[in-house]
Amino acid sequence: MNVQETLNGYKTRLEAYLNALPMTGAPETLRKAMRYSLLSGGKRLRGCLLLAANELAGGAEKDALPFAAAIEMIHAYSLIHDDLPAMDNDTLRRGKPTNHVVYGEAVAILAGDALLSHAFEVMAASPHPRALPALREIAGAAGVGGMLAGQTLDVTMEGARPNMALVRAIHEGKTAALLTAPVTAGLLLGGAEEKELHAGREYGYHLGMAFQIVDDILDLEGDPALMGKTLGKDTAEGKLTWPACVGTAQAKKDAQAHIQAAADALAPFGGRADFLRQLAFSTLHRVQ
Amino acid sequence: MNVQETLNGYKTRLEAYLNALPMTGAPETLRKAMRYSLLSGGKRLRGCLLLAANELAGGAEKDALPFAAAIEMIHAYSLIHDDLPAMDNDTLRRGKPTNHVVYGEAVAILAGDALLSHAFEVMAASPHPRALPALREIAGAAGVGGMLAGQTLDVTMEGARPNMALVRAIHEGKTAALLTAPVTAGLLLGGAEEKELHAGREYGYHLGMAFQIVDDILDLEGDPALMGKTLGKDTAEGKLTWPACVGTAQAKKDAQAHIQAAADALAPFGGRADFLRQLAFSTLHRVQ
Repeated sequence: MNVQETLNGYKTRLEAYLNALPMTGAPETLRKAMRYSLLSGGKRLRGCLLLAANELAGGAEKDALPFAAAIEMIHAYSLIHDDLPAMDNDTLRRGKPTNHVVYGEAVAILAGDALLSHAFEVMAASPHPRALPALREIAGAAGVGGMLAGQTLDVTMEGARPNMALVRAIHEGKTAALLTAPVTAGLLLGGAEEKELHAGREYGYHLGMAFQIVDDILDLEGDPALMGKTLGKDTAEGKLTWPACVGTAQAKKDAQAHIQAAADALAPFGGRADFLRQLAFSTLHRVQ
Repeated sequence: MNVQETLNGYKTRLEAYLNALPMTGAPETLRKAMRYSLLSGGKRLRGCLLLAANELAGGAEKDALPFAAAIEMIHAYSLIHDDLPAMDNDTLRRGKPTNHVVYGEAVAILAGDALLSHAFEVMAASPHPRALPALREIAGAAGVGGMLAGQTLDVTMEGARPNMALVRAIHEGKTAALLTAPVTAGLLLGGAEEKELHAGREYGYHLGMAFQIVDDILDLEGDPALMGKTLGKDTAEGKLTWPACVGTAQAKKDAQAHIQAAADALAPFGGRADFLRQLAFSTLHRVQ
């Protein structure tokens, strides 16, 4: 199996689904602003994780696509609001001007609100017999005990002394929650059992922690041209990051340990989970 | 039956439910900012409509409370984001400083996002057999074909020439959608049939249109001390309002006609819908 090829397959089909979303009733300006950020060429890691987990548990892809689209809409909304002047005040994202730079702050706020709302609208329209539990996983991860907890700590704790417990809470909320939910929601949709859900939860958690630690390292060491965004901002703004707590060398080791733990968590699936296992290892390449 | 007494009963029980919402996992700052706006003493019209519709269709109140709370959370989020400097830039709401004045813009944006997310989290946690269709009604009303369509037109069309079709679209989205959904969601939860759902949809639509026309009139003629917010802003900002299209006298007549249509729509329920009927008429008192 070629990981990159499999990943590209998921991504291509998900992009086509996202591109065809009717967004019925949206005024033209709102639709444009939503599509600008939703279709701006991200990695689609969250959506692909959901499709892969659904397939691993034996589900048909077409039934899982609305949920994969929803998690990508939630990710896109979080980036739009995160980039706002009142938040991180970023003007560049994936090499393009951020949403509020193009559409103005008012429409950018509404476009974020609209992507979040539409994620739930699309999931709620699914006739899948396990639509509600899958929606529940995603709502929990996006909510006050998940991503929004991480975002709030990230914003309100700027300039605080680096502190492992706090950084872990930020990373768990901001990143790990929204990488875990697509795995568990996908497994649920595919019909997985409790033991497999537990394994998926462990996998998503460790993958998410590694992913955010790698992101922190790239903000220090990455190539801005390659990254398509402003780098070095974490340090400038006194953000709480993993390397700020333990140093860059240890941070790399910790990311590696989380990836190993993610791969190990997939044991109950045996060789059937090779794609997810190799996908985890591939996230490390960015800092190696 | 005393309408005010019945309404106060719904309101008291809903307030208690909202006040006891655990918001598990929310950091203290986020929880405070969410509660500041959620528990700031609104009329709870949307939540009470949901409870009354659920009761009308034969449902138990405890099963409908999470959905009534959700619609109030969505209303509260929309007000927080609407008041932001980049949007309507309001500093006063219900006689108190607006959310961003108290908590700052970043936390206010996150508190709005969190109330919207939490609304879906709370609904998705319901074991009600019709939870998903009820959630779907509410998601549609809050979404790109409902409230967010109205908000976008309201923001992007400021200063345009008064135009009935456009004002109607704004009022339908901004207000009527979020007064219709609690009625249809409540009826669904209570087990209503298609004919009753249709009646509820008509009722909510006309109630919503009347409600927003009355709001437009009050912005011109209301008593700021009584209203607890800045008045006269619609004209100052070139907002598209109903009285700006047809004049205040005609606007009052139109509000009255919508209320009559709302009351008439309830015919299939007979006398059992007297509370909803009288509630509709009571919204006119504010401008009479």
